[in-house]
Amino acid sequence: MSRTVYLNGEYLPEDEAKVSVFDRGFVMADAVYEVTSVLGGKILEFEGHMARLARSMAELEMVCDLTRDDWLAIHREMVARNDLDEGLIYLQVTRGNAGDRDFHYPPEGTPPTIVLFTQAKPGLADDPKAKKGIKVISIPDLRWSRRDIKTVQLLYPSMAKMAAEKAGKDDAWFVEDGFVTEGSSNNVYIVKDGRIITRQLSTDILHGITRASLLKYAESAQMVIEERPFTIAEAQAADEAFYTSASAFVMPVVEVDGAAIGTGKVGPVATRLREIYLDESRKSAI
Amino acid sequence: MSRTVYLNGEYLPEDEAKVSVFDRGFVMADAVYEVTSVLGGKILEFEGHMARLARSMAELEMVCDLTRDDWLAIHREMVARNDLDEGLIYLQVTRGNAGDRDFHYPPEGTPPTIVLFTQAKPGLADDPKAKKGIKVISIPDLRWSRRDIKTVQLLYPSMAKMAAEKAGKDDAWFVEDGFVTEGSSNNVYIVKDGRIITRQLSTDILHGITRASLLKYAESAQMVIEERPFTIAEAQAADEAFYTSASAFVMPVVEVDGAAIGTGKVGPVATRLREIYLDESRKSAI
Repeated sequence: MSRTVYLNGEYLPEDEAKVSVFDRGFVMADAVYEVTSVLGGKILEFEGHMARLARSMAELEMVCDLTRDDWLAIHREMVARNDLDEGLIYLQVTRGNAGDRDFHYPPEGTPPTIVLFTQAKPGLADDPKAKKGIKVISIPDLRWSRRDIKTVQLLYPSMAKMAAEKAGKDDAWFVEDGFVTEGSSNNVYIVKDGRIITRQLSTDILHGITRASLLKYAESAQMVIEERPFTIAEAQAADEAFYTSASAFVMPVVEVDGAAIGTGKVGPVATRLREIYLDESRKSAI
Repeated sequence: MSRTVYLNGEYLPEDEAKVSVFDRGFVMADAVYEVTSVLGGKILEFEGHMARLARSMAELEMVCDLTRDDWLAIHREMVARNDLDEGLIYLQVTRGNAGDRDFHYPPEGTPPTIVLFTQAKPGLADDPKAKKGIKVISIPDLRWSRRDIKTVQLLYPSMAKMAAEKAGKDDAWFVEDGFVTEGSSNNVYIVKDGRIITRQLSTDILHGITRASLLKYAESAQMVIEERPFTIAEAQAADEAFYTSASAFVMPVVEVDGAAIGTGKVGPVATRLREIYLDESRKSAI
């Protein structure tokens, strides 16, 4: 079945969803995005993703006049038209098309390009990897320095995933100045002596929506959280590790650069946090 | 007059040149590009640009089966169909469209997306700015670390140009670890006591085609070249400064961060190098 894609106010068959070659998203990577999960036909973390979208756009002086309610209506329409029970909604906003390529931003009033599409992922919340845990390699963090802005400049994360796959592993963790920044498309955590350790927010990492909620839930559950950078050696010596992302929720990590973490099996903290996160986010899904 | 755009083998009116929203150039910035100048209907530095395109693609494991002769035929067809006397030919190759968004590269055999369009720039070689010189500001270099690969991840260079404009200047120079890397879309040089100083090639900067030719011509003219990094303070204390790029050739820079360079006027070395470069590249244009 062909998907229905939202493009600038229209709902189109996916084969017809096309943008100009002059679009700044295509020639300049001048675009931001969000991905939200859908479980049971309901959207998870909607407010968080919309707040981050607004922040990304504000940081880049990008303008879009859709309101939170407009966005919600489009998201819901996408769920309905694509009969989406479990899966993802991808949303991208570019600085639009001024009719030609120019480093200079398009003239004021140039409409942004807005695209949404869905990806059906039956069993999204029951990924068997969450039971086994995943294995990661580390690679240098060569990305631009404003990782707090969620832009489509995803070439290096893509290269990182391919490097992991070539190494026979599942994902890559970025390392900068000796410390882990984050995973290729996720925030990372280690657990040591009952403490959850994760890098503090800054321009060095994405301000994960799942991360924010998870830390809130963990605090409510009386868990101790330490926000600070950690090294690969520290991760290898940890009791547990995991990552969070909008599409994987809480995913245990059982090996880093060939060294098993803890028992090399999924640990109790990651397991519990995954349960809490899924419970809570299903509850607040809209 | 509507331009004719080349897209995957077809020559299309510019309004019809569209790519899928799933194209990796649009959702992942997984694309490389080249810009060549045209003077008198002839293409400058063609071999250099094609060699760099091949290198960019090889570094990213991107495949495209067009030969040098195919590329030349397309470039010439674009010149003819767009009646291009003076201007630019923009070329972009993306990793194509696998039909959905995925960090994983598309399956082997997925055709790349190939786009070319022209920009008419009458008087390209007689830019009045070359007589007056331009003024630049410096800003931190926040780009990804593989600047030797010419990708479309141009959001930060675009932000840099806007920052320069807001400051009432013409362009921005990037500074990293205390040293100038390059300009927002060009290689930069200073001249001190007759020596031409420019940063050596590495992954930190673009391997400019104009740069390579210019250094060759300067050597032939018995000029002394020093390839090493320099600071903003050193630039401000220099006798002259200039930048090179495919579209601006050799462009004098007369002010950095508010400080006049040398006399604050275009100097003899930049002037002579611009003349030599334009003469030589016109001669070798095809």
